[in-house]
Amino acid sequence: MRDFDETSITDAVLERLSATPDPRMRQVSQALVRHLHAFVREVEPSFEEWQAAIGFLTRTGQMCDDKRQEFILLSDTLGVSMLVDAINHRLPEGATPTTVLGPFYVENAPELPLGAEVAQAMKGERLHVSGQVKSAGGGPIAGAVVDIWHSDEDGFYDVQRPAEAEASLRARFRTDAEGRFHFWTLLPTSYPVPDDGPVGDLLRATGRHPMRPAHVHFMIAAPGHETLVTHVFVAGDPYLDSDAVFGVKQALIAEFPRAPEGHRVLAYDFALKSLG
Amino acid sequence: MRDFDETSITDAVLERLSATPDPRMRQVSQALVRHLHAFVREVEPSFEEWQAAIGFLTRTGQMCDDKRQEFILLSDTLGVSMLVDAINHRLPEGATPTTVLGPFYVENAPELPLGAEVAQAMKGERLHVSGQVKSAGGGPIAGAVVDIWHSDEDGFYDVQRPAEAEASLRARFRTDAEGRFHFWTLLPTSYPVPDDGPVGDLLRATGRHPMRPAHVHFMIAAPGHETLVTHVFVAGDPYLDSDAVFGVKQALIAEFPRAPEGHRVLAYDFALKSLG
Repeated sequence: MRDFDETSITDAVLERLSATPDPRMRQVSQALVRHLHAFVREVEPSFEEWQAAIGFLTRTGQMCDDKRQEFILLSDTLGVSMLVDAINHRLPEGATPTTVLGPFYVENAPELPLGAEVAQAMKGERLHVSGQVKSAGGGPIAGAVVDIWHSDEDGFYDVQRPAEAEASLRARFRTDAEGRFHFWTLLPTSYPVPDDGPVGDLLRATGRHPMRPAHVHFMIAAPGHETLVTHVFVAGDPYLDSDAVFGVKQALIAEFPRAPEGHRVLAYDFALKSLG
Repeated sequence: MRDFDETSITDAVLERLSATPDPRMRQVSQALVRHLHAFVREVEPSFEEWQAAIGFLTRTGQMCDDKRQEFILLSDTLGVSMLVDAINHRLPEGATPTTVLGPFYVENAPELPLGAEVAQAMKGERLHVSGQVKSAGGGPIAGAVVDIWHSDEDGFYDVQRPAEAEASLRARFRTDAEGRFHFWTLLPTSYPVPDDGPVGDLLRATGRHPMRPAHVHFMIAAPGHETLVTHVFVAGDPYLDSDAVFGVKQALIAEFPRAPEGHRVLAYDFALKSLG
């Protein structure tokens, strides 16, 4: 256990971790060391590059507070969040695909009656949303809780505009006996992820923009089913092929056509994975 | 670029990074994504485990201030610092091995005349240190700057005891015409790395102690040579085979025998890698 060199040090660290009491902790920490050392051996960082990495991680942690989670943003922009999502949602044929939760979800949004308007003080093009919640491979689900939230026409969520009305463009609905829901809101727009921190620096250094294509978030929960966390994206958005957080899936893109009355319309049905 | 799944998302992220203007940045960021995704695919973290990892990294960043660098401590305890050190110091035969700098180095320590005493107000067993600085495969180096620092008998460095005298157990010397240096100090002891933060939690979760074996730090700089950053460890220390930061190398372990007069003695010679 002395005289490690640049190849044998990995085995020395793995050996040290072999005494980890919890088997899962042992597995994860040993895998971390193997992959982290392999990364270092591949890129052969200079001392200055290692220092820069330490500084980047430190600034990322220090950017976090109760309204900002820069490490989640880092995970999102490196595709890790979507990878973890995919691993945890191996869905049956016909189930609606999942995507990232994002940082703007708020628990216990107000529950409103079907047909309600959620725009409050926010401004934008009027949008009517309707859909049906079903069990994948089964029938409609009555009483499912449909949590929705999205940005306004300037790309901001209500929590980013604390001076405005609380809980705008955000609400919970309960599906009717046929599993249907509907409500009025505003057309969302594409917007940048927060890019005034270390993750923004990294996006710029790698020649990437911070934009997400316009979308409405849905979280749909029903007894006996896996809770569905997803978005519906607006077809034609210029950022559909370059979402900063890799959240787009083809099946989640929908048309938002204009109705004869002038407002926009989204009609989208959801299929939840049945448990057990 | 849509419909990523848990294998194709990695290529999608790599493709996005291919526009990185700086070739080194592109290489490092793409390697990071490949290794990070491979780690995630191997351990298949649950959403809760991913959240725990985000929380750990956030706490690690927030533990850092001008006196504490928790991400360096994480790098040290995962063997990454020693791996980076090894990669950056592929030394010729006969050169003194390197080891980690550690967090307690202070630039511009007072320069003292050869034979000086550096203990100041600190307490411990008296130690006489002497040695010769040579060029690896060559002759003695006159005028080399020998920076030394170490812990006291309680395992604390001067910077951890701000109430005591400044710059204790810490000084710079200049080698004489024969490349020799000597000074009086105190015998260092083994001590724990700071373990009241996230890294301490990780050490406990993996069944590891936080101890480092007793050592004296040396940083030796001379024109035409690579600056040597190393420790000399005290033979017989109980933690030599389980240094929390994997810093021990056999050639850096020395006897610190007791002299007839009662004090301890370290005699150790250093050989620096010649540049160019």
